[in-house]
Amino acid sequence: MSNEQKTNAQSLPRGFQWGAVKAGIKASGKLDVAVAIAPKTANAAVMFTKNQVVAAPITVGRRHLRATGGRVAAVLVNAGNANCATGQAGIEGCVQTCVAAAETFHCIFDEVFPSSTGIIGVPFPAEKVVAALPAVQATLGDTPDHAELFAQAIMTTDTRMKTARAVVDVDGTEVNIWGAGKGAGMIHPQLGAPVGPPHATMLVYLFTDLAAGSEELNKLLAPAVERSFNCISIDGDTSTNDTVLLLASGASGVQLTERITEPFANALNLVCGSLAHQIVDDGEGVSHVVTLHITGARTEAEAKQVAKAIAHSPLCKTAWSSADPNWGRLLAAAGYSGVEFDPAKVNIRIGVQPVFELGMRSPLFDEAAAHAVMLEREYTITLDLGQGSAECQFITCDLTAEYVRINADYST
Amino acid sequence: MSNEQKTNAQSLPRGFQWGAVKAGIKASGKLDVAVAIAPKTANAAVMFTKNQVVAAPITVGRRHLRATGGRVAAVLVNAGNANCATGQAGIEGCVQTCVAAAETFHCIFDEVFPSSTGIIGVPFPAEKVVAALPAVQATLGDTPDHAELFAQAIMTTDTRMKTARAVVDVDGTEVNIWGAGKGAGMIHPQLGAPVGPPHATMLVYLFTDLAAGSEELNKLLAPAVERSFNCISIDGDTSTNDTVLLLASGASGVQLTERITEPFANALNLVCGSLAHQIVDDGEGVSHVVTLHITGARTEAEAKQVAKAIAHSPLCKTAWSSADPNWGRLLAAAGYSGVEFDPAKVNIRIGVQPVFELGMRSPLFDEAAAHAVMLEREYTITLDLGQGSAECQFITCDLTAEYVRINADYST
Repeated sequence: MSNEQKTNAQSLPRGFQWGAVKAGIKASGKLDVAVAIAPKTANAAVMFTKNQVVAAPITVGRRHLRATGGRVAAVLVNAGNANCATGQAGIEGCVQTCVAAAETFHCIFDEVFPSSTGIIGVPFPAEKVVAALPAVQATLGDTPDHAELFAQAIMTTDTRMKTARAVVDVDGTEVNIWGAGKGAGMIHPQLGAPVGPPHATMLVYLFTDLAAGSEELNKLLAPAVERSFNCISIDGDTSTNDTVLLLASGASGVQLTERITEPFANALNLVCGSLAHQIVDDGEGVSHVVTLHITGARTEAEAKQVAKAIAHSPLCKTAWSSADPNWGRLLAAAGYSGVEFDPAKVNIRIGVQPVFELGMRSPLFDEAAAHAVMLEREYTITLDLGQGSAECQFITCDLTAEYVRINADYST
Repeated sequence: MSNEQKTNAQSLPRGFQWGAVKAGIKASGKLDVAVAIAPKTANAAVMFTKNQVVAAPITVGRRHLRATGGRVAAVLVNAGNANCATGQAGIEGCVQTCVAAAETFHCIFDEVFPSSTGIIGVPFPAEKVVAALPAVQATLGDTPDHAELFAQAIMTTDTRMKTARAVVDVDGTEVNIWGAGKGAGMIHPQLGAPVGPPHATMLVYLFTDLAAGSEELNKLLAPAVERSFNCISIDGDTSTNDTVLLLASGASGVQLTERITEPFANALNLVCGSLAHQIVDDGEGVSHVVTLHITGARTEAEAKQVAKAIAHSPLCKTAWSSADPNWGRLLAAAGYSGVEFDPAKVNIRIGVQPVFELGMRSPLFDEAAAHAVMLEREYTITLDLGQGSAECQFITCDLTAEYVRINADYST
């Protein structure tokens, strides 16, 4: 058995078809309704945002998965309208699109999994989605072009589509994973089990032809999400619609067994890690991607808490935008993270450049060298807390005037 | 007895002198060493940042107040260097300036209360502060001009000085409070009792001629700070040096008694409230000051938690910068605040304009009218959680490209 990332057509998971059309929901007139179908249905695992405020498709999607015991025949995504804070009309509009999709794609209405992304609070144009369904059906197919159509249609402020794939070879049979994701703002996913209300702007759809049950898939998905999508932040705003859906068609004929759990989990981690990275890399206004490697923590949760304080600090993020090695801001943010530590034991490096140790600026601090590291589009900042062996890698980005420009002019 | 805010010279508290000089610490060459002295000493109450990382002057100041039992003869402030993350050398430099100040101002070295604000991690130029002391002494005086000199010297990226005063008339005798404060970035004070380490960029000095003990003053200061400085945020970055110091000279001859506690507390609240507002109003790059009035909460702490999530949301803050009534972002931020609530019971208004109720956009939503409210420099957003009677008022601001510009070019 081996994991590998392939880009050839053969590595798309079997048992799925994809398609998309322009339904006039995006003001730009671009592709905005995407569909993925599993003609023989697929077993699903899902994680939704932990936001208290949830979009209608999350409420409906959760209800549908409960009703079917985790079976999905069609994924119906629209971009351009989040269908969040739209009241009972939003719920009804969502159900209406699922009923229409069930008719079009010949399944039961609660086998349709709905998703929306876009502006919050604007009435949901269900009629546009419904009217687009016959056209979507005509676009369905299982080639890479079809899959890319799907990946493009789910984008909002993304500048490029995000896909990733991996293959596990099981005694000569390929088990494929292919995923598509979208960002690009309101990105600080806090995904949890499907309880409580969600409105999300990170949408990720993972398809595999492995044969596995819904519960088994959930056990695989949770840890993969925890170390990928739950370890990224663009702006610290956790959306009301964040969704990660994993569908397993079983079309490879390979059943999930204890023996292939680890290689499959590794492949899933690869795909999730790649998509998470791509989402930050294409974040709104991003000019630098920064990996925060927090080490020497007492627990992984504490390492993450420190990483998040830094990742959400406007002062750290603006300094990164100008490659300013102002490490004092990193230390200050760690200091207010809520994690107790002794500053005298902290060690900070930018790339391989030492900047802080023994409670003060490193004697080896070389401002020009640290600045040079930060001129790269991507680099790592390592902060060792000096009080344990737990760690985390958290991917984030700088805050630029371009981010402000993009978000200061959204709905008006 | 009555409270009033006066601007005439007579309302400065007696028993203090102020002065300041240019010591060459600020790159701009502006005033950067400020001193306030209480020739007969004053009783002190203090609150420091709760940041785990503390600047040297906080460590030293805390030690001095413990040693003297809360007695202060001189306040010594420098701007341009935070003396934070400067190791043992920073502590020694701070002590050295206190010893020199004690000699200059004829007091004991631990009656000197030191403060620093500026960049973190750059070696502290103690020698510049020491060399400046004789010149500072020559500037000391008790007129409004002297007090303003002090208020100007403590500024960093502030564009204007921040002062406030109030008078309590006690049977014909005036008890005065005068305060000076500085912002303008790394502003999200989380002040607590003087325990644990702090580096802060909000510095506030409050002077009164009331006669009161250190413990009594602490009891008055804590609630005043809780509803003023602990209820503002510019960028959500809690500094390592934040300090609020209240000094009581006793020179009015009026002793704090139960009878005057309430009017004095009211006057102190006025001064703290005014300074807190001025600090946000002069925040880095601020073009709009927004008061978040969170009502209908189960507890004041929950109201504050919701306010902070909104105040720290880049998406809310960028929308404010363009007067965009994108209320969905307010709701989303409240949703991830960690406070549980039912979105269907939430009511949101921008100024008096209803925007969200009963789980969806208000039928009375008038985008143009809401936009018009947001074009004002200052307005209130009211969010009622519909589940209790606790509330808070939290003052914050927008996030502009100018904030990014200011902070993307600080140390280099």
